[in-house]
Amino acid sequence: MVTIIKIGGNIIDAPEKLTGFLEDFGAVEGDKILVHGGGKVATEIGIKLGITANYVDGRRITDAATLELVTMVYGGLINKKIVAQLHALGSNAIGLTGADGNIIHADKRPVKEVDYGYVGDVTETGVNGALLHQLLQTGMTPVIAPLTHDGKGNMLNTNADTIARELAKALVKFTAVKLVYCFERDGVLNKDESVIPSITEEDLDILIAEGVVSAGMIPKLQNATSAVKAGVTEVMIGNAKYLQALIAGKSGTLIK
Amino acid sequence: MVTIIKIGGNIIDAPEKLTGFLEDFGAVEGDKILVHGGGKVATEIGIKLGITANYVDGRRITDAATLELVTMVYGGLINKKIVAQLHALGSNAIGLTGADGNIIHADKRPVKEVDYGYVGDVTETGVNGALLHQLLQTGMTPVIAPLTHDGKGNMLNTNADTIARELAKALVKFTAVKLVYCFERDGVLNKDESVIPSITEEDLDILIAEGVVSAGMIPKLQNATSAVKAGVTEVMIGNAKYLQALIAGKSGTLIK
Repeated sequence: MVTIIKIGGNIIDAPEKLTGFLEDFGAVEGDKILVHGGGKVATEIGIKLGITANYVDGRRITDAATLELVTMVYGGLINKKIVAQLHALGSNAIGLTGADGNIIHADKRPVKEVDYGYVGDVTETGVNGALLHQLLQTGMTPVIAPLTHDGKGNMLNTNADTIARELAKALVKFTAVKLVYCFERDGVLNKDESVIPSITEEDLDILIAEGVVSAGMIPKLQNATSAVKAGVTEVMIGNAKYLQALIAGKSGTLIK
Repeated sequence: MVTIIKIGGNIIDAPEKLTGFLEDFGAVEGDKILVHGGGKVATEIGIKLGITANYVDGRRITDAATLELVTMVYGGLINKKIVAQLHALGSNAIGLTGADGNIIHADKRPVKEVDYGYVGDVTETGVNGALLHQLLQTGMTPVIAPLTHDGKGNMLNTNADTIARELAKALVKFTAVKLVYCFERDGVLNKDESVIPSITEEDLDILIAEGVVSAGMIPKLQNATSAVKAGVTEVMIGNAKYLQALIAGKSGTLIK
């Protein structure tokens, strides 16, 4: 059994939140993997370096300069800061991008209406589950940055939610997998702001049709249902503040 | 038998040189580890970020901002660029800092006449040779950035020559080790610019006394002789341009 936990920028951007989260993460029992997103720090460093953010339809384009920026900020600054802190908390963390040990192979997204630039879509057999499982078995805690590679010498920028899902799907071949998406809310919320305790794929279609689920939540929930369909034992979405309760199924939204 | 090869900034700063070197490195037979230094790119990015370099006695001080800079540039940008390129050349590279898997534990250098800041001295038992050996045995090629950690949550900046030596010393407990220091010259040079084919520890004292060996070369050679004393099978110093000849002992200077 392995627990894969994904955190986003809202935690990474707040040092005291991050430290609190890492303490809770360090206390999670059994094998675990942390997948982290980016955060505003990349944008801030980019501004200082004169790398302007280009967006198409609200999605950031990863040009060559942005790729260098995220490679250093996600793969270096954020990843190593987390790894060093986890060691101080007793976890034998090992920080990895998708290129390291060929953990996650991706294809550069084909140019259609939009050229997303150096963005990678994880290939069908792209996740090296055997290596991840081997690292877990030797007592290590992989900490994964949202970066992949194409095997042709290029790093690629890849969504952290997607990476968490793909890791979960690859690891079900080796062990039971619990996938936990942490974000800034307490779960998927009803219109009255109460947490929806559980959602099935059919529920999701209704929630989207009724406009309960916002645009930003849709890909997150689709990631979750696709993980469930691939055999992931349990998928939870909720607030990082209540990590233990979330893992125990006492907080957040369960995706069935 | 493992070959540990260290490259410095002169190669990292020149993309075409780096690509050529990585092709040669990819072709090196058997188990191998690459240790890379920093390069001017960190200084250039630092200038854009308003991080001014502070030097005392010609040695750069690693303040908190500089530590963040080198963590992202060495551990992210340079390390992952090399790892991605090596995969394209058929090496199963895995990029690591000393924090990852607790590969290299260091102590923050004590403040004496100079406060070097966040600089780490590798501790006596600081290198996790067992993990490195395990990675090599599973066919991986570790690519090591010049960064360590103190186990208390802090990354530390550590000289790449020293890291290469310490890895070599730790790995002799598991296998024969060849240590190769690449730099911009063809070896240790006589006053007439001819390459000195081999140097013993006693020779080194004489060369220093006679002023043949320059100030910058002295720590490099002391690193080399200390590795030999620790049982490292062979230490070579020479030009990265002739990597195969250097490894074969047909180029460069052999430290005995």
